[in-house]
Amino acid sequence: MKVCPSESIPAEPVAMEGAKQVSMRVLIGEGDGAPNFVMRQFEVAPGGETPHHSHPYEHEVFVLSGEGVVLEGNEERPLRGGDCVYVASGEVHQFRNTGGEAMKFLCLVPRMDKSC
Amino acid sequence: MKVCPSESIPAEPVAMEGAKQVSMRVLIGEGDGAPNFVMRQFEVAPGGETPHHSHPYEHEVFVLSGEGVVLEGNEERPLRGGDCVYVASGEVHQFRNTGGEAMKFLCLVPRMDKSC
Repeated sequence: MKVCPSESIPAEPVAMEGAKQVSMRVLIGEGDGAPNFVMRQFEVAPGGETPHHSHPYEHEVFVLSGEGVVLEGNEERPLRGGDCVYVASGEVHQFRNTGGEAMKFLCLVPRMDKSC
Repeated sequence: MKVCPSESIPAEPVAMEGAKQVSMRVLIGEGDGAPNFVMRQFEVAPGGETPHHSHPYEHEVFVLSGEGVVLEGNEERPLRGGDCVYVASGEVHQFRNTGGEAMKFLCLVPRMDKSC
């Protein structure tokens, strides 16, 4: 069993093209022996955003704090703490922080090396 | 894409043997088309607890609010908001609320019908 404060895990800047002022912590993943899916925590600074893109796997998201929008294609849908978001494989999406504080969310993905 | 406040999803009491004052919401799962894993939100009332048990699949947990402990076998490990917990397949575990407010946490599991 692993038990730890999420913010004790180092955050790394997200270098992916299109990401602005985004960092990520891998809370639970391959290094912990997790066989099926990975829990990551993202932090987007005010004015920051994740890439506007799609990919062949899903996201399961839970917004911890802050305010922003998620783009469903080009349509903005408002987000705040306590919201959950399901982004299906292939859906174009982007997370943007439109508030004055960090927007923090969990975003879980399947392990790429273990898809059936 | 699905976007909704988690607490707009109805909570159901957990009837499993050994569960006391526990309710669960399925935030993202099979009904949303999620192919690989399920995001559930649990709420344990003060004095409540989940079953002391093990099972052949993992948990990926994030504590949203409240205070409690997770038992690793019979050892209590303290928990509070912002903590993450990885419970491997086969590990004996139990979540107990030892505080005065509801303990809320996310607990994600693989889809049982899709294991490789």
